[in-house]
Amino acid sequence: MENTKKLQIFDSTLRDGAQGANISFSVDDKIKVIQTLDGLGIDFIEAGNPFSNPAEMQFFQRIQGMKLSHAKIVAFGSTRRKGISAAEDSNLKSLLAANTEYVAIFGKSHIRHVTDVIKATPEENLAMIRESVEFLSSHGKKVIFDAEHFFDGYKTDSAYALSALKSAHDAGAYCLCLCDTNGGIFPDEAYEITKKVTDTFPDSIVAIHCHNDGGLAVADSIEAVKAGARQIQGTFLGFGERCGNANLSTIICNLQLKRGYECIPNGNLKDIYESAATIADTANMAIPANQPYIGMNAFAHKAGMHADGVLKYSSSFEHIDPEIIGNKRKFLLSEISGKSAIYDKLKKYFPSLDKNGKEMGDIVNTLKERALSGYQYEAAEASFVLLVEKILGKYKSSFDLINFKVINEQPAIEGKVASAIIKVRVNGVTKISASDGEGPVHAMDLALRSALSEFYPEIAQVSLTDFKVRVLDSDKATAAKVRVLITSANSCDSWTTVGVSEDIIEASWLALTDSIDYALMRRGK
Amino acid sequence: MENTKKLQIFDSTLRDGAQGANISFSVDDKIKVIQTLDGLGIDFIEAGNPFSNPAEMQFFQRIQGMKLSHAKIVAFGSTRRKGISAAEDSNLKSLLAANTEYVAIFGKSHIRHVTDVIKATPEENLAMIRESVEFLSSHGKKVIFDAEHFFDGYKTDSAYALSALKSAHDAGAYCLCLCDTNGGIFPDEAYEITKKVTDTFPDSIVAIHCHNDGGLAVADSIEAVKAGARQIQGTFLGFGERCGNANLSTIICNLQLKRGYECIPNGNLKDIYESAATIADTANMAIPANQPYIGMNAFAHKAGMHADGVLKYSSSFEHIDPEIIGNKRKFLLSEISGKSAIYDKLKKYFPSLDKNGKEMGDIVNTLKERALSGYQYEAAEASFVLLVEKILGKYKSSFDLINFKVINEQPAIEGKVASAIIKVRVNGVTKISASDGEGPVHAMDLALRSALSEFYPEIAQVSLTDFKVRVLDSDKATAAKVRVLITSANSCDSWTTVGVSEDIIEASWLALTDSIDYALMRRGK
Repeated sequence: MENTKKLQIFDSTLRDGAQGANISFSVDDKIKVIQTLDGLGIDFIEAGNPFSNPAEMQFFQRIQGMKLSHAKIVAFGSTRRKGISAAEDSNLKSLLAANTEYVAIFGKSHIRHVTDVIKATPEENLAMIRESVEFLSSHGKKVIFDAEHFFDGYKTDSAYALSALKSAHDAGAYCLCLCDTNGGIFPDEAYEITKKVTDTFPDSIVAIHCHNDGGLAVADSIEAVKAGARQIQGTFLGFGERCGNANLSTIICNLQLKRGYECIPNGNLKDIYESAATIADTANMAIPANQPYIGMNAFAHKAGMHADGVLKYSSSFEHIDPEIIGNKRKFLLSEISGKSAIYDKLKKYFPSLDKNGKEMGDIVNTLKERALSGYQYEAAEASFVLLVEKILGKYKSSFDLINFKVINEQPAIEGKVASAIIKVRVNGVTKISASDGEGPVHAMDLALRSALSEFYPEIAQVSLTDFKVRVLDSDKATAAKVRVLITSANSCDSWTTVGVSEDIIEASWLALTDSIDYALMRRGK
Repeated sequence: MENTKKLQIFDSTLRDGAQGANISFSVDDKIKVIQTLDGLGIDFIEAGNPFSNPAEMQFFQRIQGMKLSHAKIVAFGSTRRKGISAAEDSNLKSLLAANTEYVAIFGKSHIRHVTDVIKATPEENLAMIRESVEFLSSHGKKVIFDAEHFFDGYKTDSAYALSALKSAHDAGAYCLCLCDTNGGIFPDEAYEITKKVTDTFPDSIVAIHCHNDGGLAVADSIEAVKAGARQIQGTFLGFGERCGNANLSTIICNLQLKRGYECIPNGNLKDIYESAATIADTANMAIPANQPYIGMNAFAHKAGMHADGVLKYSSSFEHIDPEIIGNKRKFLLSEISGKSAIYDKLKKYFPSLDKNGKEMGDIVNTLKERALSGYQYEAAEASFVLLVEKILGKYKSSFDLINFKVINEQPAIEGKVASAIIKVRVNGVTKISASDGEGPVHAMDLALRSALSEFYPEIAQVSLTDFKVRVLDSDKATAAKVRVLITSANSCDSWTTVGVSEDIIEASWLALTDSIDYALMRRGK
């Protein structure tokens, strides 16, 4: 490659990533992932194993007409089976039929796996590699050879591991990929062993493929690049079997923002956060809040001192500016937040608020009092905004509760264990409504919406998407306080509210009414 | 230290870990975390900042009598403020009052933070460090000096960063801790800069304290150890602000199993998995399924080639034997403990149980089914024993429920928001009883005891000591399943029971009846 700082990025979300627990993709999901990765400027997208089942093969046929701006689709398979010729091997024939320019095939490079798992002779395995690469190359394919268990194999018998690579290399492989299949190597080993390979095959593109079983896949990949690897394989969100594959979003950010490599076009860096969210949504997996770079809390500050430091000197507690990759700084509201962090959070809702005024003092004091009684607003910004509206005298309730009654009983009645009766008053009109449900909060939610829907038809579009319960002071056992967090969404927004009480029903009720209040308050905005 | 392969492990779950979003500990939670870490053989436990609020100080007072087998408790604070003497500084006075043998204080070592954040002169900052360490040392404390932003500071002005360490060192600090406060450094930097420090201060214990903003905290810590650091700071499960602190469970497993270091006594390695589960439950946080070493899926193989390989050659797709740390290999979806582990757990309750008999098969199958519906018995051994009694046909119920009704209402009646009516039958006699309470579970607990007390006076001695709720499948919002854990105790024993349902009242009821059943079953034993 001309530019020695340009790295190839190879994403296997749809192949190795799909091996992860609870991950599966429909055809439409796969197409969405391909479009997202292509839009970001990822070089290679491993889309599946066409031999594994007919649906996979159909998928390769279906995407043949797909217009991609940058990425190359890769079909995955293995070297031929022992005892037959490459031309007879159905797996290799499937790879030809998948009709991609690039194919990746894995083969053995660990002597023990040759003798104990596939039970072939060392020479036979080398022939399997050589003939498979030759066969695919002779049909015009560019072949990426995945040397399975390469690092462990190198540590067991380095000469044999290198001879497996040499077989692929001499047969015309486009790229030699070093796999840490068990995910157990250390960064220093990744460096030393990769260096040996890049020195031995100076004219080859060497790739690194790590798994995260030791929590080191990102570091291992970075060290391999330092040793001369020019292609990084992984999955964009770290999906994969066991502890997952190397997380490409982390690696790209690390190498491009801090070491001057070009992994994706610079102009696309700002899309990383949103692309990650799209892929996670498509896979129906949540991105862990503490995920480096792309997590919701990756730039969240809680302690008063830290938050204060960030405001004074932006790199105080941030390794990069979150906006570069499309993420944003957050200040968590807690008993230890300082005034600066609170003000920063409020100014978009209350632009006229004076940072040094009496009202800010009231807000800070109220937050402290509420923290003592178990309220945490860091995840419940909607309740926080409503609280501030109340402190500022701007709050207007959308309804008054006259009373409610929630009943749980066993045996259940027609399969429903709970029922709720709610009586509210809106603009002087009283309305009573009831519902049963799977549990008390479910029944209460349905009854409240039913009571309010004739006054506020738009609440039909609000749905509850998450419900969390945390027991506080749990040594008080069943009389302990609980904190309930409810997340609600409509078509364009999502918000979280909180309620705290010794009674879980009351805590849920408080969070539920905040959620409705917030939805109605935001209507006009 | 005599043994150069012995490393000190310093856990800050209760201090830096508690900075993480959604993490908070009650006093009992904190004590449980301390006991768990101590049981594992962790060397230092940073328990909080006694100056931050009165509750923290009370906590240090409360744990003074606590008997620990190994760990040292550490109180955390900072260097004195500028412009006053150490003896006048309330933060340093709090550290003395906390009455621990070890204290950790952070101070600035990055020149820009000195000039721009605390706005002190370079000399004044060095005096703050020196005088604070001297003051604490002169009062008999062993001082761990946390050099905040050390790595970034070293890269900006290495001479100044080293002079901050030298000030602490010359004033008698026990240990110099190098902090990557922003979590952005690379493993090669961690190695090179730590090496410079260990070369400069060959007689000091050097500690490493990393954050995971680049996904590199584990690798950075390992490289620092290679460069001569002898203490590793982190949090056992990686809890902490933003992307979390260095994950000690991963680091301990990596260094002790693969590099021959001694982090905890070898005999305790097998307890790592269970200790992690205890800490996670206490914090009411789930361990990510793909977490290295301790995740539920860390050794899960998704069928086909991999599973087959593992059976042929055990290290095919496993970097370590999972049993070493108390985790286990999994082949199928959500399979729980192997038969041996279950048998091991049961034999003290059922000495005549045959490990290879049909009954063991029934037990394993029932556990698998229950795991699929959300039951976890790891923390609820009492419910597990009752379940096995039922499978073995040995269970005799102590009462039959005829029906119950639990009512919540607003406005509250005489301050009570909930009431419960329970009707039971014991030995052919029907009894109905009612109670009000602070919440539905509280009311139900009191009503049930009242109904049973004339038949079983001993249940008056049982009290509920802990109550935890975990929402499963939380995207189903208010109709999601909940798992309730209840811990009960009498004068000589303590036990935990579990209930799962879409209805929190029913889940609580299940856990509550198990608790009573277990108490009555154990009477004669």
